Amino acid sequence: MPDAAYLALDWGTTNRRVYALAADGTLLHRAQDDRGVLAVPAGGYPAEIAAIRAAHGDLPILAAGMIGSTRGWHDVPYVAAPADSAALASGAVQAGQGVTILPGISRCDESRADVMRGEEVQVFGAIAAGLAPADALFCQPGTHNKWIVAEAGTITDFTTAMTGELFALLKAHGILAGMLDGPVADGPAFRDGLARGQAGDLTAALFEIRASVLLGTRAAEDAASFASGILIGADAAARRDLAGRTVHLLGRGALATLYAAAIGEAGARTITIDSETAFLAGIHTLREQLQ
Amino acid sequence: MPDAAYLALDWGTTNRRVYALAADGTLLHRAQDDRGVLAVPAGGYPAEIAAIRAAHGDLPILAAGMIGSTRGWHDVPYVAAPADSAALASGAVQAGQGVTILPGISRCDESRADVMRGEEVQVFGAIAAGLAPADALFCQPGTHNKWIVAEAGTITDFTTAMTGELFALLKAHGILAGMLDGPVADGPAFRDGLARGQAGDLTAALFEIRASVLLGTRAAEDAASFASGILIGADAAARRDLAGRTVHLLGRGALATLYAAAIGEAGARTITIDSETAFLAGIHTLREQLQ
Repeated sequence: MPDAAYLALDWGTTNRRVYALAADGTLLHRAQDDRGVLAVPAGGYPAEIAAIRAAHGDLPILAAGMIGSTRGWHDVPYVAAPADSAALASGAVQAGQGVTILPGISRCDESRADVMRGEEVQVFGAIAAGLAPADALFCQPGTHNKWIVAEAGTITDFTTAMTGELFALLKAHGILAGMLDGPVADGPAFRDGLARGQAGDLTAALFEIRASVLLGTRAAEDAASFASGILIGADAAARRDLAGRTVHLLGRGALATLYAAAIGEAGARTITIDSETAFLAGIHTLREQLQ
Repeated sequence: MPDAAYLALDWGTTNRRVYALAADGTLLHRAQDDRGVLAVPAGGYPAEIAAIRAAHGDLPILAAGMIGSTRGWHDVPYVAAPADSAALASGAVQAGQGVTILPGISRCDESRADVMRGEEVQVFGAIAAGLAPADALFCQPGTHNKWIVAEAGTITDFTTAMTGELFALLKAHGILAGMLDGPVADGPAFRDGLARGQAGDLTAALFEIRASVLLGTRAAEDAASFASGILIGADAAARRDLAGRTVHLLGRGALATLYAAAIGEAGARTITIDSETAFLAGIHTLREQLQ
């Protein structure tokens, strides 16, 4: 087993993943905890870094994600799209103590403003590892789903949809709270939701969840799947450019399955790429460009 | 001044309004408090009714709104649309102690399920008082905005949109919390939001609020108006049938002004009808049909 050469951190809002990697990018070990940036007090990062090194080795660190945001350790300015992996690497900042923090990517013109931090690493990694072509449309489900367009290995455009966050808000608060606690799975209720979500009247479709249960036209235990289908169906339908295309789905688990169903209903085929594999390939590529 | 003949209650989820009316419908006095159905414990209604009579007179009571729901005193079954005021009156239930509770209206077919409780009284009242024609499209802004279609004085269809609730959820929780505390007013940011909301990608438009402030393309103090515009613009645009029409807006105050702007951008003209005037006219009509 080779020696670890550096530590890669995927440091998000609520979770943190630590990877020890060999110089050639081989994964040696991983760890995950809930010390996302929201859990770290102001001024707490040097102690967090010291604890990570005590556990995983006194090594150089390359970090991506919300650690580089206004809510993280250092606010690393966004690199403007179009951006390739070299452009991203050129925006990295030394946070001190041998820690390098990668920037995110912004896109901003008269039509629209959008930002991301961390997701771009997976896109560059998927392309570098040959898991996706250099021209591809990616979908990255999560609290904030990202649709990312790559052309010749460069990220040229992307769109963030608050789909997962809206589901969480509706489940926890407001008039649908208590109705969405059941399991979410691909099935007839989810597919009904996908169709309903495509109609373009999302705020009305969401109220229909309550009305249909009150009137007995939908079983209460199907409400969560119906709601998830409405939200994910609206997200996919809003693109209007999926028919006949291939979407590279960066994810794993149940949420990737649900998005694959929605994308399929919109007329595209999906190729699922494991998001951790893509992240590690991306970090390795970016580290080589930083050296 | 004539004697009071009965008390009308507009008993909603969070607020309660009490009106003392003469036999001819003349308003003698009003009161409002926050004893909505969520504030009344199980079994607490007889005491509430007694307190209302102690304050406003020992009179027959006619009540509308969420008091007739599963969360209220008696679950009064919905009357199915199409329904006129006589049909609504025929579904009223005696809750005991001289209290009559009106039902709500449901609509349910293979395409869609929807329900309302209380809003229909305003529609019947606006028509009965000659404030709106018997064939009209109504809009009733609120936590749950209602679009209501009347034909020959009969409610034939309606749509509920969770527009106001979504704004409240986003303001109080999640990643936009803290960004939407500024004033909401009709102005350039609100109008930008209306245009953005019409694009049919609501969950992406909502994330753009955050991105545009982060990237400095929108002033932080304009975020709340922009967000309100996105949500109300999406609500109005979802109808797709407004161009060239007249919308009768049942409301008052700032929210009615915002919806009038959105409806105007969608190509319709608005006639605003005071919602309390409409409610009282509706209650009077329904009482006459109950006698």
